[in-house]
Amino acid sequence: MKVHRADNLSVFFEPASVAILGSLSGTQAPGYVTIKHLLDFGFQGRIYPVNPSCNQVLGMEVYPNLDHVAGPIDLAIIVIPPLAVPEIVAKCAQKGIRAIIIMSENFAEASEDGARLQRQVVEIARRSGVRIIGPNTIGILNTANGLITTPYFMGYDKIQKGSIAYCSQSGLFSNVVHPLEDLAYPISKMCDFGNKCDVNEVDLLNYLADDPDTKVISMHLEDIKDGHAFMEAARRAVIRKPVLILKPGRSQAGAKATASHTGSLAGHDQVYDGAFRQVGVIRVDSLQEFWEVPRVFASQPLPRSNRLGIVTASGGAGVLALDAAVGAGLEIASFTAATAEKLAKLSPRMARNPVDMGPLMTISGNPFSVPEQVLPIVMADANVDCVALMTDWVLMQGALPTMDTFHQLVQQSSKPATVFIYGSKQTIREELLRQLTAKGLATYLDLETSIKALGAAAAYSRMRARA
Amino acid sequence: MKVHRADNLSVFFEPASVAILGSLSGTQAPGYVTIKHLLDFGFQGRIYPVNPSCNQVLGMEVYPNLDHVAGPIDLAIIVIPPLAVPEIVAKCAQKGIRAIIIMSENFAEASEDGARLQRQVVEIARRSGVRIIGPNTIGILNTANGLITTPYFMGYDKIQKGSIAYCSQSGLFSNVVHPLEDLAYPISKMCDFGNKCDVNEVDLLNYLADDPDTKVISMHLEDIKDGHAFMEAARRAVIRKPVLILKPGRSQAGAKATASHTGSLAGHDQVYDGAFRQVGVIRVDSLQEFWEVPRVFASQPLPRSNRLGIVTASGGAGVLALDAAVGAGLEIASFTAATAEKLAKLSPRMARNPVDMGPLMTISGNPFSVPEQVLPIVMADANVDCVALMTDWVLMQGALPTMDTFHQLVQQSSKPATVFIYGSKQTIREELLRQLTAKGLATYLDLETSIKALGAAAAYSRMRARA
Repeated sequence: MKVHRADNLSVFFEPASVAILGSLSGTQAPGYVTIKHLLDFGFQGRIYPVNPSCNQVLGMEVYPNLDHVAGPIDLAIIVIPPLAVPEIVAKCAQKGIRAIIIMSENFAEASEDGARLQRQVVEIARRSGVRIIGPNTIGILNTANGLITTPYFMGYDKIQKGSIAYCSQSGLFSNVVHPLEDLAYPISKMCDFGNKCDVNEVDLLNYLADDPDTKVISMHLEDIKDGHAFMEAARRAVIRKPVLILKPGRSQAGAKATASHTGSLAGHDQVYDGAFRQVGVIRVDSLQEFWEVPRVFASQPLPRSNRLGIVTASGGAGVLALDAAVGAGLEIASFTAATAEKLAKLSPRMARNPVDMGPLMTISGNPFSVPEQVLPIVMADANVDCVALMTDWVLMQGALPTMDTFHQLVQQSSKPATVFIYGSKQTIREELLRQLTAKGLATYLDLETSIKALGAAAAYSRMRARA
Repeated sequence: MKVHRADNLSVFFEPASVAILGSLSGTQAPGYVTIKHLLDFGFQGRIYPVNPSCNQVLGMEVYPNLDHVAGPIDLAIIVIPPLAVPEIVAKCAQKGIRAIIIMSENFAEASEDGARLQRQVVEIARRSGVRIIGPNTIGILNTANGLITTPYFMGYDKIQKGSIAYCSQSGLFSNVVHPLEDLAYPISKMCDFGNKCDVNEVDLLNYLADDPDTKVISMHLEDIKDGHAFMEAARRAVIRKPVLILKPGRSQAGAKATASHTGSLAGHDQVYDGAFRQVGVIRVDSLQEFWEVPRVFASQPLPRSNRLGIVTASGGAGVLALDAAVGAGLEIASFTAATAEKLAKLSPRMARNPVDMGPLMTISGNPFSVPEQVLPIVMADANVDCVALMTDWVLMQGALPTMDTFHQLVQQSSKPATVFIYGSKQTIREELLRQLTAKGLATYLDLETSIKALGAAAAYSRMRARA
């Protein structure tokens, strides 16, 4: 009998109760760390530690096995040696658990024995209708309810709530090895697919497309299991929100290695490129772009078109921005006569795009007043669809009120903007990144990426207009 | 009468005595800040503050004018309003000063009046044989003697001594607005050409080509004044050391803006591209590459050829590295049978390039031992010319002895290597970057740039072989 499978992943991301099956012996043990994370990040659902050789952990009762848990369990997190996994999955299914995350490694990615174990797990899942994320995953997280299933040391205990969903097929793109707190990504949900024995990119696209907390999806994929289903899910998602994909394997060497890393075949890159274009997926090209480009979608409106206004405290930065803009598919806006006139009144040298505020700031009694005067003029120009602001942290720090003004302008004008912060103190640049992100500004520490993000926004806007 | 001009710039970078002509009224005054920097960075030469309206500054006697300075002056740093500059330059020349840095703005870059003033200054310089850097510059620095001429607030007071020379035509690329201390660039000298009224890229290339403290030159250029002289100087420099150039204006919009930013005409990009290729200059493409790519040349030997070995604690990072490698002109090394056999003994899954240490590290009692075993094998492979190591800071922190081993290996094997550090704490990644840089490892916080750097090293090595 084929049991109907719940396709919606909400039970993974919004469980009322979670069972953790894993070692609790010591503060480094995976079961212990998972429970600690759930507590530290404020998960409000019920937590059931399950372990036969332990009575108590972190002030909570430990259940010797699932049968001893009286209440219903929505989600099971399994982090035990692979050989024991199939039996536990079967028990979870018997218990009526509908969602399981198998964190454990050494399945299909490791050996033929592992692949056999993974097939057993999949077989049980198919028969029982239980859904599985993993194996070989860092897990999932949901900032809305403090759910975080990671059994590894993370080194921080705050993630900013926001609207970016990050999904990946490798731990490199996870909360464990990227500084989510330090760089203040505004995150809704994350998911490491791992080996994708059941839940995969198609499920995530479908789920996140409908997720009201998610405004943009950034996804790392080494392969795509079912091209047709992917195209359908991506097309559906792209209508609702931007989908960015980092898909390595552009080079043949890369394609070969991808195949061996995840045990699945990576197709020819041109096929992927064509497919992404056809459904409106925006392809990003580096680890940095995977993380950073989504920022602009998280906080900014879409531009009407692709004409960029650049406002900079450094002439040199403005020149670099031009190259980056053209590379990102943006046009350099030609200001209207009215804008040019207004800017010329402030300083004749500023009456063009990029607007180099540097010279006026140097001679101005209050340098912070310059961006406050310039930004409204440029934002209001009918020939400008989006704005890149580039400024030193020294200015920024003195000019946080200016940033408030800027933020209000962005909100009022319905034009997107990014801020690139340069400067001589890394810690202060990062602190400003956090503060400005919290204010809802799309803030960047890399010049070219701050422009590339606006290019992605313009590309998505164009696609939406065509759809 | 045409006076013979000293072409060597050593008097700028190694002056025995420096006069500072600028305002001393308050701790923000440019003259004051310049002197403070010279003291803070340990400049050992004589310092002569010159100012008519002040008797003492920072415990030093202030001279009302140059005539009151008894001893010889090698270098004058002028940071006074532009209208007064020509007269002061003339006085410097009379006094026998051979080198002047004019920090002041509002010359040719600003207006026709400014351009006229600049022409006056150049006229005086031509007549008297004095050499001038600027105007409109952040100044120069030399880590060997603590000379730093910057009149602006920097926010830090240590720069690591090293062998990278950075030159630029914009303050964006200067010590004032980039975190030199936090990111531990190993620096020999820096120079912001400013308006290049006299000293320009040709002089710097000639000087730095012969500078024993400089192993690599990274240069930002918005224009080139004399194509023929540049080609000659670049060709000469490239024979001695790698020359990396960031030249914006790839797009036509960029070219137009460059022209207006510096008041000089930027040529067609293809011309530059061809010229750079012809003389062996390596072109870099972003602000980040301008700063980061030189690291590999500062500490690493040149590779014999372009075959890359990748050793990674994350399979996902290895896959990204492959794409980046092919993009950077590197080949993915095919290990010898002996190497494959040795790696297979450690773990069958590691017997290929990229070597994914992740799985073995997970099950290993001492994960730090894995890179210690793997690195010597890969470094020694006859088919491997250079190595990229990619690892988490958690591992790194526990494995600083491993890094010592790695560093010794790099030194012994005469093959270059880069280290990419990922991980969940930005401050710890940066601290490790500083520590490893101090140990002489080429360390990166961006994956793709760590590979691009090895590609640049291989490209330079190939050029050297052809020359």
